[in-house]
Amino acid sequence: MTSQGSTRQPKYQRIADALRTAIQAGEYGPGDRLPGENDLMATYEVARMTARQALGVLQNEGIAEARKGAGVFVRAFKPLRRRGIQRLAHEQWGAGRSIWSDDAGDRELAVDQIEVREVEADNRISSALGLPSGAQVWARSRRFVLDGKPVLFATSYLPSDVVGDSAITQVDTGPGGTYARLAELGHGPVHFREEIRSRMPSADEAERLVLSMGTPVIQIVRTAFAESGRGVEVNEMTLDSASYVLEYDFDA
Amino acid sequence: MTSQGSTRQPKYQRIADALRTAIQAGEYGPGDRLPGENDLMATYEVARMTARQALGVLQNEGIAEARKGAGVFVRAFKPLRRRGIQRLAHEQWGAGRSIWSDDAGDRELAVDQIEVREVEADNRISSALGLPSGAQVWARSRRFVLDGKPVLFATSYLPSDVVGDSAITQVDTGPGGTYARLAELGHGPVHFREEIRSRMPSADEAERLVLSMGTPVIQIVRTAFAESGRGVEVNEMTLDSASYVLEYDFDA
Repeated sequence: MTSQGSTRQPKYQRIADALRTAIQAGEYGPGDRLPGENDLMATYEVARMTARQALGVLQNEGIAEARKGAGVFVRAFKPLRRRGIQRLAHEQWGAGRSIWSDDAGDRELAVDQIEVREVEADNRISSALGLPSGAQVWARSRRFVLDGKPVLFATSYLPSDVVGDSAITQVDTGPGGTYARLAELGHGPVHFREEIRSRMPSADEAERLVLSMGTPVIQIVRTAFAESGRGVEVNEMTLDSASYVLEYDFDA
Repeated sequence: MTSQGSTRQPKYQRIADALRTAIQAGEYGPGDRLPGENDLMATYEVARMTARQALGVLQNEGIAEARKGAGVFVRAFKPLRRRGIQRLAHEQWGAGRSIWSDDAGDRELAVDQIEVREVEADNRISSALGLPSGAQVWARSRRFVLDGKPVLFATSYLPSDVVGDSAITQVDTGPGGTYARLAELGHGPVHFREEIRSRMPSADEAERLVLSMGTPVIQIVRTAFAESGRGVEVNEMTLDSASYVLEYDFDA
């Protein structure tokens, strides 16, 4: 996908293309420092502003990131592989394992900013759960931090009439988490729907996930359905796109 | 997710927050014109630069887009719903239907920039298909245009020794497309893996998909596996994130 060196293309774009090609060819690996403004000025015989723009293009694309005073570096991309279907298999939470532990593998996944509270459902949530508008739901929020970097925050909503006074209303939901508790309540999820979108973050989201410039977020909205067809959970997740590969494996 | 009007937040950010809240509440619908710089200057008693920055925030987030000389508008978001699993069901292509027709529903989906050629697989493709490096593969490229807007481009790679001289080497692969032909060749796909990433587009990609500023792309790499476990196709897709919702439906 190397672009031709069209003469109509601005100089900074051509320099950015050359650097991108070198990164894709492995000449600069993850974490490597790219040539600085002075290097690019000398190599390409361009003004400082042109060199800066070229490096800016790669930062905007999320390929490189600036570190204050140190230069511009190829972004180290060691994404989490989130296996959408396997991680939610009944064998996982039914056996008392955490869904999230499947994503992280051997890496250290910490949970913070946990908040559990009962709220009035807004229209979006109540319609997804088939509840009358203004119905009470339990909202469980948390953030996941991998190797010190926030990678995801999420809020899941569950109907109060389903949850009752079970451990779902507690910070620690116990082995197998929310889904294992739902199953004990006779509302175990048998079907899931995940909807995936991507967009640029708001300032709040960028701060909460410590995103570098030019990094989109991925949004996943999952609805869990019980045997009866009833929606028993809606989970709204916001992911650092640079930290995740989503994988879905399925049969034809 | 309305942020509190912290006094430490810069003014333009607070104006952007107010506009975003109004959009989310439906006060400004898709395609509506937002207040202009002059309006914001009068309403919030700020300088032109501050008003401009506030509108810039919404454009960077992909919520709004500028139209030359006309102002800044709420982006019209009528995404395609791409049902990842159903669309690839054997009943779909096995019955001679196009996978893509499932995405578009009643809307007009045109295909252009079609290119079919035999090439040497690069390392990424050959390893995904379990081929020796440098093996020959057929590469099928195309772009999809919905209601006049390019929404996706893709290249799929299939091993030449599987494809032979079947219709897969032609622009028109016939009813049911590539997968129906693979089935006739004894290599029908029985399993799929889709890997999803998101990032900012390169200049080339932004041009090819006519992306407005602040719009990420979604990348999907699909591998199709035959009964033997062999990889028979790798399809690399690049999607306009503002045009798609990806949906995956599956059982626990």
